[in-house]
Amino acid sequence: MGLVTLLTDFGLRDHYVGVMKGVIYGIHPSSTIVDLTHDVRPQDIAGGRFQLLTAAPYFPPGTVHIAVVDPGVGTSRRSIALATDRAIFVGPDNGVLVLEDPIRHAVVLDRPEYWRSQQSSATFHGRDIFAAIGAHLAKGVPLDLVGHHIDPVTLTRLDLPTDCIQSIDHFGNCITTIPGTRLASQIQVGDRILRSVKTYGEGDIGEPIALIGSHNFIEIAIKNGNAQTTLNIKIGDPIICNPKSNVIQNPM
Amino acid sequence: MGLVTLLTDFGLRDHYVGVMKGVIYGIHPSSTIVDLTHDVRPQDIAGGRFQLLTAAPYFPPGTVHIAVVDPGVGTSRRSIALATDRAIFVGPDNGVLVLEDPIRHAVVLDRPEYWRSQQSSATFHGRDIFAAIGAHLAKGVPLDLVGHHIDPVTLTRLDLPTDCIQSIDHFGNCITTIPGTRLASQIQVGDRILRSVKTYGEGDIGEPIALIGSHNFIEIAIKNGNAQTTLNIKIGDPIICNPKSNVIQNPM
Amino acid sequence: MGLVTLLTDFGLRDHYVGVMKGVIYGIHPSSTIVDLTHDVRPQDIAGGRFQLLTAAPYFPPGTVHIAVVDPGVGTSRRSIALATDRAIFVGPDNGVLVLEDPIRHAVVLDRPEYWRSQQSSATFHGRDIFAAIGAHLAKGVPLDLVGHHIDPVTLTRLDLPTDCIQSIDHFGNCITTIPGTRLASQIQVGDRILRSVKTYGEGDIGEPIALIGSHNFIEIAIKNGNAQTTLNIKIGDPIICNPKSNVIQNPM
Repeated sequence: MGLVTLLTDFGLRDHYVGVMKGVIYGIHPSSTIVDLTHDVRPQDIAGGRFQLLTAAPYFPPGTVHIAVVDPGVGTSRRSIALATDRAIFVGPDNGVLVLEDPIRHAVVLDRPEYWRSQQSSATFHGRDIFAAIGAHLAKGVPLDLVGHHIDPVTLTRLDLPTDCIQSIDHFGNCITTIPGTRLASQIQVGDRILRSVKTYGEGDIGEPIALIGSHNFIEIAIKNGNAQTTLNIKIGDPIICNPKSNVIQNPM
Repeated sequence: MGLVTLLTDFGLRDHYVGVMKGVIYGIHPSSTIVDLTHDVRPQDIAGGRFQLLTAAPYFPPGTVHIAVVDPGVGTSRRSIALATDRAIFVGPDNGVLVLEDPIRHAVVLDRPEYWRSQQSSATFHGRDIFAAIGAHLAKGVPLDLVGHHIDPVTLTRLDLPTDCIQSIDHFGNCITTIPGTRLASQIQVGDRILRSVKTYGEGDIGEPIALIGSHNFIEIAIKNGNAQTTLNIKIGDPIICNPKSNVIQNPM
Repeated sequence: MGLVTLLTDFGLRDHYVGVMKGVIYGIHPSSTIVDLTHDVRPQDIAGGRFQLLTAAPYFPPGTVHIAVVDPGVGTSRRSIALATDRAIFVGPDNGVLVLEDPIRHAVVLDRPEYWRSQQSSATFHGRDIFAAIGAHLAKGVPLDLVGHHIDPVTLTRLDLPTDCIQSIDHFGNCITTIPGTRLASQIQVGDRILRSVKTYGEGDIGEPIALIGSHNFIEIAIKNGNAQTTLNIKIGDPIICNPKSNVIQNPM
């Protein structure tokens, strides 16, 4: 195959993403590159992780995912690559990569002969290390060759809050951290209690609703409207499933 | 070939477009994907149609165009694919697809064995139906196999206004609904009467002008300036060709 | 190979970039296209040149770079292509292309049989001339065939200011015109004197620093912060290397 995805907080105004692609095609001309997104908020590791975690399942087996949200570039944070049964992930060891699937193998990227040049810049590992390593891995170089084995339990994991808003999309749909399997007939956000539906279309015009969104998390939305601005929702806002049942548990 | 284009109102901040590409490459690894634009205003079917209609002629024969501006997702609106002599179009039956060229064949997408999974999500047909169908069609699967024939006269068409501004581009150039063949020596927008020229360069600095733009419609522009903000033009504003000749027709 | 890059000021809201790709794939279906950036400020030739100049070295030999920042489209400015030892550049003769490397061959694009259609539009040479020519060149058509030889000394060059800020990136890092080889222990911008470091990570929280950035120019940055907004820096602001040594030269 040779399918490579890129996720960064670089934006598209500069040539940074283009240059990573130049490095990849230089090493592996027949690879195919897909942009996941480059509009992660600068330095927002949790936001980048969310996009990567929820996008990766839709890619064919063997895809190499490169993720660069990297506030610690140039410090002692490790550069890593890891393999699950379905995919390979390359990036900084700061929690942005997908650690939820069983990890078959993880390495620290300490073999400069696989970097863009033996001397990496101190500021742009996306170009000098991650793009180059991703290209080699997409080309079929085994993980063993690009770095030394590390124990997956040593990888940096984010402390993730529970039962709150974790992402807000372009349409103003607010995606919670709560799996769709926990969808209750009513969902509370702030002081609003919303009814649950199956599709956006079931909502009345202007009515905030809860449903299982395309990420398989409970999502707050307004049919043909913008839930974020209408309800003034922010990332981190708490969510309660079945607020009435909570009340019932209250004696009296 | 295997050329596939994507047009959506998804924006690029989320992974939605990337995930559609993951589905396409999973089905048809050697396809080539081109983004037309993902910055159609949310739910703006007419705006999406304009971009697709005016872009499609520049693609090679056999290109598969997937367009997802889909406020009715999850309702009873049909999912369709249609073939003209030059191209294949895939998307919701809401007017966003190109219905201007003679339609050789149209189908409703009712064969889930060609979807991403037999069970489509209720919220993201772009990923679960349109991307998958587009990939199969680009791979050479005949239209007949992916759905049942429907009569092209039953397809949803937009009611399009005449002689007005239909689109405003990144430079503030204002594209009208009037074909370039109707360009007159003078064009009126609001209370301003503009002279017609052949190229942006013929305009004086700061002078609003009318010309045949690259879309082959009459366009209002300012050389090295922004006609939208300078003239305060909005989509839907009426346009009059040859306003003087109208005056002349006025007795006395 | 057949690697083609695109750099424009077209933005991504319209289909202009997509249409250029349609033209390229129509002529050279197996080419690979990379977007450098399409967010050059409208008509900002110097900004486009900076992005192209600093990105090109990271692409494999033989890459065709198409750059369209073209306020003079439709005037008498020439359309050109030129070859260096490493790459081919296609675009308007207004200074946006890379003229820093030794030029082996330059031509004016006066052979309409290699354009998209013999009759170019007056407003969109990116589509009608540059994309088509770039595709032919990526396919292996020699430079000689697409136009007549011109003397490289006749090419339009920008008057570039020295020792100032030339670009500000998405993170607010401010890139100067000063090569990294001139990095001094102290750098002055406005009335602030900054110390020089090797990596972003060496800066204290909130401390503006100077370092050799990924473009190999001296750069002003703030670790995990935004130097542009914090220091209120604008493109063109002057920079002084080693301001103290200047003071020492002052008698008394």
